[in-house]
Amino acid sequence: MRPTTSTAASTPPRSEPTLGEPPDFDTWTCPVPLRDHDRIVMGHGGGGRLSAELVEHLFLPAFGIDPAVELHDAATLDLAGGRVAFSTDSYVVRPLFFPGGCIGDLAVHGTINDLAMTGARPLALSTGFILEEGLEMATLGLVAEAMGGAAQAAGVRLATGDTKVVERGLADGLYINTAGVGVVPEGVDIRPRRAAVDDVVILSGAIGMHGVAVLSKREGLEFGTEIRSDSAPLHELVATMVDTCADIHVLRDPTRGGVATALCDIAVAAGVGIAVEEAAIPVPDAVAGACSFLGLDPMHIANEGKLIALVPAAQAGGVLEAMWRHPLGRGAAIVGQVVGDHRGLVVAETPLGAHRVIDVPLGEQLPRIC
Amino acid sequence: MRPTTSTAASTPPRSEPTLGEPPDFDTWTCPVPLRDHDRIVMGHGGGGRLSAELVEHLFLPAFGIDPAVELHDAATLDLAGGRVAFSTDSYVVRPLFFPGGCIGDLAVHGTINDLAMTGARPLALSTGFILEEGLEMATLGLVAEAMGGAAQAAGVRLATGDTKVVERGLADGLYINTAGVGVVPEGVDIRPRRAAVDDVVILSGAIGMHGVAVLSKREGLEFGTEIRSDSAPLHELVATMVDTCADIHVLRDPTRGGVATALCDIAVAAGVGIAVEEAAIPVPDAVAGACSFLGLDPMHIANEGKLIALVPAAQAGGVLEAMWRHPLGRGAAIVGQVVGDHRGLVVAETPLGAHRVIDVPLGEQLPRIC
Repeated sequence: MRPTTSTAASTPPRSEPTLGEPPDFDTWTCPVPLRDHDRIVMGHGGGGRLSAELVEHLFLPAFGIDPAVELHDAATLDLAGGRVAFSTDSYVVRPLFFPGGCIGDLAVHGTINDLAMTGARPLALSTGFILEEGLEMATLGLVAEAMGGAAQAAGVRLATGDTKVVERGLADGLYINTAGVGVVPEGVDIRPRRAAVDDVVILSGAIGMHGVAVLSKREGLEFGTEIRSDSAPLHELVATMVDTCADIHVLRDPTRGGVATALCDIAVAAGVGIAVEEAAIPVPDAVAGACSFLGLDPMHIANEGKLIALVPAAQAGGVLEAMWRHPLGRGAAIVGQVVGDHRGLVVAETPLGAHRVIDVPLGEQLPRIC
Repeated sequence: MRPTTSTAASTPPRSEPTLGEPPDFDTWTCPVPLRDHDRIVMGHGGGGRLSAELVEHLFLPAFGIDPAVELHDAATLDLAGGRVAFSTDSYVVRPLFFPGGCIGDLAVHGTINDLAMTGARPLALSTGFILEEGLEMATLGLVAEAMGGAAQAAGVRLATGDTKVVERGLADGLYINTAGVGVVPEGVDIRPRRAAVDDVVILSGAIGMHGVAVLSKREGLEFGTEIRSDSAPLHELVATMVDTCADIHVLRDPTRGGVATALCDIAVAAGVGIAVEEAAIPVPDAVAGACSFLGLDPMHIANEGKLIALVPAAQAGGVLEAMWRHPLGRGAAIVGQVVGDHRGLVVAETPLGAHRVIDVPLGEQLPRIC
């Protein structure tokens, strides 16, 4: 790939990491003409000149990567050693753009968050695109810029990537896979099986926004107040928490399957019971209204900017205070406790004082949410 | 995810890493009933109970992973420190099964090879699946077993994964993304820009088999002899070469775009000329015949079990001998040299003594080849 200096100079201003709604495709301009293609053709996935041009003129500028960078089959990262976290997620969200974000920043935030749930500091992401023949170049450009902006805002490098193209009618525009690598700080050991009786369950904020935002956009539903996705990178919030209490037992981001699935997974993995106080879980009015209208349980709705932490009771106060000082933890609250009863089960006390078993949904009430 | 011991016991015998042709779907049996689904439904991608069952009862047994393993948002790897290689590739090959392999082992070999091209020892892969609603469970089972078999044969861990499901009509059965992490040995610095004048160009064996095998299966073409994909993991061959000559300058696997694109990329990246002796490049008769029939250039056809090495002239003999001792390097030959002339260009001397410029194809003559 021949480096050019003109490319960087003609890069349009980066979009905000969180895109507004609706995206303005007309303002996106290709840094240099991609052989006059305003749509993806099969050859963009062929590994030849068109593929190279797509990387050089669309992805590198959008990702904010110096076009003189040396491209290779794999990126190399210098690590001081120790434990490395490694995760992957594919993103097939529909629609591609929704209130509060798009598939691009979602794909960056989601994998950063998976890494952060081990306490890791995320270092680098890979970006694997599967593009549909006929996809508008402007759409891809906005998605790529959202990825670049999200990665830069998070201080994470988009280190290596790949692009494939499939025929028209497949892939629904585009799918993205991001895998990520991070470093787990010395002494940090955060994983589901470390949940222990008497641990306090902390939730970082209000739930249900991502799932309801995507659903409402997709189905053309309006619920009065517009609900925006909570998509956000949680690694800095986690770093703050780890600095306060390196002995956090479990972290989990309640994405697909929602808070219910996250808690159930932990209860089963660690063989503990989890008692939840339902009234303590913040559910925005608009989410509650949408769920009531649609017959959904907010506990099953996906989030992408929230986390659940299980911490030793003695340290819960300090962790909470640290979370409140971070913008993404301002709504943090204690919502439950790990108990020796009903091992493997999550039981919620309802606002009326009754108890109900919280279960994992069988499938997904809201498919294609991430 | 509840660990079971019965799962492991009822796992069927693993398929060979390289599947025969045609695959026998009838012999694949699900280790335990996946809720009586013999096809993928949307709920298998929902993050709920069906997703968990797919992981527990299909992927873990197929990958040969102890069902008691602790699953988490990210895997952690212990590294001694140093340089880590990181790569990703999505696989959209059609058909899913072809002579000599399937999308599963291809996805393992391809990312292992990308890592190996930095000289890295591959350690772990992630597996990201995008499944089409309605995909037969037996198909997915065979693909997953081929991945598990290929990873075990290569000594690489399938460390972390993700599954999404999209509606019927999208995704063409399934797509796979694998990202990989490896460790680059001390003192090894292999990358395109290290190509230097007088370096010898070595090709590890005969070209064109993967592309022609996939194409012939897809289009129902017969070329006399059946051509089988050369899909294979190259990291052990690379380790042998590095042991002989730690100062290998460049390695490249000529996948999409073929040997032509790989050499052109190196010539441009390093600003050197590459002179190729066309008669020295081994092209099997069946590949030559197919290319002649179809009007394709064997130099543009994708491979997945071959590599190109650029090594200092003084060490070429030793590297070649080391390659010949490895099963995947038995056909290794010197095919060219780096020159100070025609910088940025690859020029081949034809068998008739004429010279032609070898160029990168514009798009892809054979889409969906990997």
